[in-house]
Amino acid sequence: MALTDEQRSEIEAVRAAPHQTVRPTVPAMEALLFEPFPLLDHGFIRVVDYMGGDSAVVQAARVSYGKGTKKTSEDAGLIRYLMRHRHSTPFEMCEIKFHVKLPLFVARQWIRHRMASVNEYSARYSVLDKEFYLPDATQIAAQSKVNNQGRGETLSPETAAEVLSILQRDALQCYGDYERMLDPEGLGVARELARINLTLNAYTQWYWKIDLHNLMHFLALRSDPHAQYEIRVYAQKMIEILKAWVPHTAQAFEEYRLGAYSFSAGMLKVLRRRLAGESVTQETSGLTKREWTEMQAVLEG
Amino acid sequence: MALTDEQRSEIEAVRAAPHQTVRPTVPAMEALLFEPFPLLDHGFIRVVDYMGGDSAVVQAARVSYGKGTKKTSEDAGLIRYLMRHRHSTPFEMCEIKFHVKLPLFVARQWIRHRMASVNEYSARYSVLDKEFYLPDATQIAAQSKVNNQGRGETLSPETAAEVLSILQRDALQCYGDYERMLDPEGLGVARELARINLTLNAYTQWYWKIDLHNLMHFLALRSDPHAQYEIRVYAQKMIEILKAWVPHTAQAFEEYRLGAYSFSAGMLKVLRRRLAGESVTQETSGLTKREWTEMQAVLEG
Amino acid sequence: MALTDEQRSEIEAVRAAPHQTVRPTVPAMEALLFEPFPLLDHGFIRVVDYMGGDSAVVQAARVSYGKGTKKTSEDAGLIRYLMRHRHSTPFEMCEIKFHVKLPLFVARQWIRHRMASVNEYSARYSVLDKEFYLPDATQIAAQSKVNNQGRGETLSPETAAEVLSILQRDALQCYGDYERMLDPEGLGVARELARINLTLNAYTQWYWKIDLHNLMHFLALRSDPHAQYEIRVYAQKMIEILKAWVPHTAQAFEEYRLGAYSFSAGMLKVLRRRLAGESVTQETSGLTKREWTEMQAVLEG
Amino acid sequence: MALTDEQRSEIEAVRAAPHQTVRPTVPAMEALLFEPFPLLDHGFIRVVDYMGGDSAVVQAARVSYGKGTKKTSEDAGLIRYLMRHRHSTPFEMCEIKFHVKLPLFVARQWIRHRMASVNEYSARYSVLDKEFYLPDATQIAAQSKVNNQGRGETLSPETAAEVLSILQRDALQCYGDYERMLDPEGLGVARELARINLTLNAYTQWYWKIDLHNLMHFLALRSDPHAQYEIRVYAQKMIEILKAWVPHTAQAFEEYRLGAYSFSAGMLKVLRRRLAGESVTQETSGLTKREWTEMQAVLEG
Repeated sequence: MALTDEQRSEIEAVRAAPHQTVRPTVPAMEALLFEPFPLLDHGFIRVVDYMGGDSAVVQAARVSYGKGTKKTSEDAGLIRYLMRHRHSTPFEMCEIKFHVKLPLFVARQWIRHRMASVNEYSARYSVLDKEFYLPDATQIAAQSKVNNQGRGETLSPETAAEVLSILQRDALQCYGDYERMLDPEGLGVARELARINLTLNAYTQWYWKIDLHNLMHFLALRSDPHAQYEIRVYAQKMIEILKAWVPHTAQAFEEYRLGAYSFSAGMLKVLRRRLAGESVTQETSGLTKREWTEMQAVLEG
Repeated sequence: MALTDEQRSEIEAVRAAPHQTVRPTVPAMEALLFEPFPLLDHGFIRVVDYMGGDSAVVQAARVSYGKGTKKTSEDAGLIRYLMRHRHSTPFEMCEIKFHVKLPLFVARQWIRHRMASVNEYSARYSVLDKEFYLPDATQIAAQSKVNNQGRGETLSPETAAEVLSILQRDALQCYGDYERMLDPEGLGVARELARINLTLNAYTQWYWKIDLHNLMHFLALRSDPHAQYEIRVYAQKMIEILKAWVPHTAQAFEEYRLGAYSFSAGMLKVLRRRLAGESVTQETSGLTKREWTEMQAVLEG
Repeated sequence: MALTDEQRSEIEAVRAAPHQTVRPTVPAMEALLFEPFPLLDHGFIRVVDYMGGDSAVVQAARVSYGKGTKKTSEDAGLIRYLMRHRHSTPFEMCEIKFHVKLPLFVARQWIRHRMASVNEYSARYSVLDKEFYLPDATQIAAQSKVNNQGRGETLSPETAAEVLSILQRDALQCYGDYERMLDPEGLGVARELARINLTLNAYTQWYWKIDLHNLMHFLALRSDPHAQYEIRVYAQKMIEILKAWVPHTAQAFEEYRLGAYSFSAGMLKVLRRRLAGESVTQETSGLTKREWTEMQAVLEG
Repeated sequence: MALTDEQRSEIEAVRAAPHQTVRPTVPAMEALLFEPFPLLDHGFIRVVDYMGGDSAVVQAARVSYGKGTKKTSEDAGLIRYLMRHRHSTPFEMCEIKFHVKLPLFVARQWIRHRMASVNEYSARYSVLDKEFYLPDATQIAAQSKVNNQGRGETLSPETAAEVLSILQRDALQCYGDYERMLDPEGLGVARELARINLTLNAYTQWYWKIDLHNLMHFLALRSDPHAQYEIRVYAQKMIEILKAWVPHTAQAFEEYRLGAYSFSAGMLKVLRRRLAGESVTQETSGLTKREWTEMQAVLEG
């Protein structure tokens, strides 16, 4: 990862000189603000600002003055109610801003979430660092046989080593040529052109700001086992941050989103038959094999 | 306006117990937080939270660590540059949340701005207060003869008085019947139905959260002389708040948006001819009368 | 409802002179284009344009050329797969445009859906018609005792008649005063001001354009029994239109959204215990009473 | 470019079998539908569907029935009025869908425009073609000395040749290793992993759907001389398509956007002084050097 000494001391200076505010404050967030959490081999995520917390969700739901609630227990109940009934607008009332360093191919998946604000490091304006993502050997896997867009079994250590050496060699060569093209004493190519020679595992960074509702939508999709491993590690770290930021909301999110399962109309019919004592098989269920397998996996926990 | 004693003391309690934060803080905003600014006869606007300030705009533009800038003068220049070249994403990095009390017909115009988050007081769930907007006599005007959707000359005091007495009588009667329909001992109609009897000058309230870029877009449109007076007074108050929140941004906004004028291709041709010493009239300008008049008004200041 | 003779003959003229197109066409939609479906007492909805159909969803999912699929059966399966796994972007590839006439209080709920385009009749520019929504006696109900924002039991015919006469009298009086204020020979008030005297059951109209994904999101929320009756009738009519437009998508929507139910993590635990033969009561379930009741209702069909 | 024979004949089959529709139709668009326009060395853009045209803009502005207008001249005037006064919602009533093949680094700039729908070819699911962008020698340029994010002077033919050979060699090597990693008989790496070895000049493709208002916003930004050449060629081709699709709107767009210039408050003061006969220099203007230079360039045409 890459915090220079100067950057570290800037962060420490900011942290050492807190201000007074009458805005809602979340102590657990104050404790982790600015701190980079390392992810993958050169990436990180850090919170650079936040607005509101569980209390702001409750306040908006009540369109109330001041603190708006008397007891925390009532707040938790209200938040669970809002989550369960998909009353999403109160969750839009909180906002968080991250500074993220991530490989380009992860950035390309991430940016598909449109309901967020982004400022990315510009390779037209500046030179990208000599850093590229090389997966840990345990993450180098074969094409999945069941999931057309995912990984299956881990490859042998020998194969993984060969893959790594290919990735490393190509990235280094492309970066070397990038530098050579940029060199004002050499080829002197414009930055916006030279950078097209970089590989997709090069790292970029950005500020990314999103509201709590849309963050949870992002996290539900990107922490899913079907998401690519490399974006999932960012989502998982953000779920930890979510727990620090909005503990009641995070709990309701796990209860009603991450840990929930939507039964289709056909699945509900099967459930009713089974609860009535009938023995149902895939053949008699009216469900496709995929649906049946998925439902069974859920029901078996 | 309507802050109850209880609400006032809640706000005072919050203001009296500030917290420590390492987040960016804007002292001028801390000073005005929660304070309701009265608008129209029963409305108000108050800031309930904010995130970031001029420094956050600069930070995002530089995708930098820590404070990111050395001198305020450079920040101001960068902000002017961003505003002038319509680099809007750094301005999305700041956020503000208002609590607004406003007449329903103003709310209907306001809500057309989609890039914001809203939680409105629900008349399905609660009973609306007995408050309705009655314009000041100086604001009661005839249909404009030049602007198909605006007001023209102020009506005579006698006519204004008659208009006011009509508005008041109808609003009171409708509200009285609303109460009568709601009365559980009387007609006992559901709230969601009874409220359809209210007039459009009844007051509602909401929490409204928006980023700085979209706020300025809203303010440019709604502080315009073509906007209806009753929403304009909210926009003007928010421009004052903008100056407290992000002084450099507000200044650039006035220079490059509010005080700017876009010359069409045809107008540019006229300008060039005039600067070359040619005398141009509307007839020889190639502009429509409306365009000509508007351009002349701008050029005459 | 209000199609003038002139409007009717315009529509007929358009329908009588079809054009040739190589764009994807849905015959069932061609048949209903422009036709107003009456809703409530003076409202309507009509489709004025559409883009794409089931085949466009499939095409986008396959990022393919030309027709992209061989068999309809495969298309249906792919659409079900997309719906089940919440792959929503292919559904954004279809678009529909409605012309809607609706009461103001319904418009206020409708407009909260931000991912759509709207052009509304402007009461600053034009005069609103003398039409206001008066509910059918069967829809005049008491405040619900279980749903804080809904209707409960229907009121007696006598009470309903009284409610109706109140609504009618107030609407007529307000409209009469609106006309009186507008009268250029009389008070001569500007339109933007006079209209604030109208009641919320006055009718407005707009063009509303939305993509298929966001339409289904709207329909899921607004066809729900918790939605207010008056907006639900619009949603239900649009679901019928959906079936004509995109039959495969509509079927998947009913299977995986409208007819589905999301079991929370806690509900899944209860399900597992029950399927294992254990008798579970609300007390031993770990669920709240509301959750238990709702789940039971679903499981009993 | 890459239309296979099969794809070409599919397109021809569709074009040869037009349907009847009562929807608004634009003959000039029917003529160019599906046809790929080649761009860069392997890219293209083609229109795959459209909804509405100039008449739909007018119709929405009038919230009218049927055709809504009598004379084309009035339509053009209304469209100019809407454009000039930034009444943007009627332009949202038209929609267009493109199929685009473009280099990854162009896709990364393009996707920053959030108000659009996208379905992209997935390199997790499929294998990318062996095609990468190699700039024409005339486009290989040095870093600009005045524009920190752009190109300056074209490099010598010898230098350009060397740059090209580097870009080609690295792209080929990376692609070769991509294939080698993918080979199920060889290393057998999952697609989602192997593709991280590709360079940013590899080609991707997507369906991209956007409304007319947001399209013009995109085009204004991306046809600007400050935009990177490689995305500008797509924007310029789309402006040609715009002229075929909505000729009145395109003309107003050129008059009031592309060919217009926004004078800041400070620039307006200078203009007024000059029109009053005063000789103003940069030093006495109150403008920065950059502002002065830019304004002078505009005024000199």
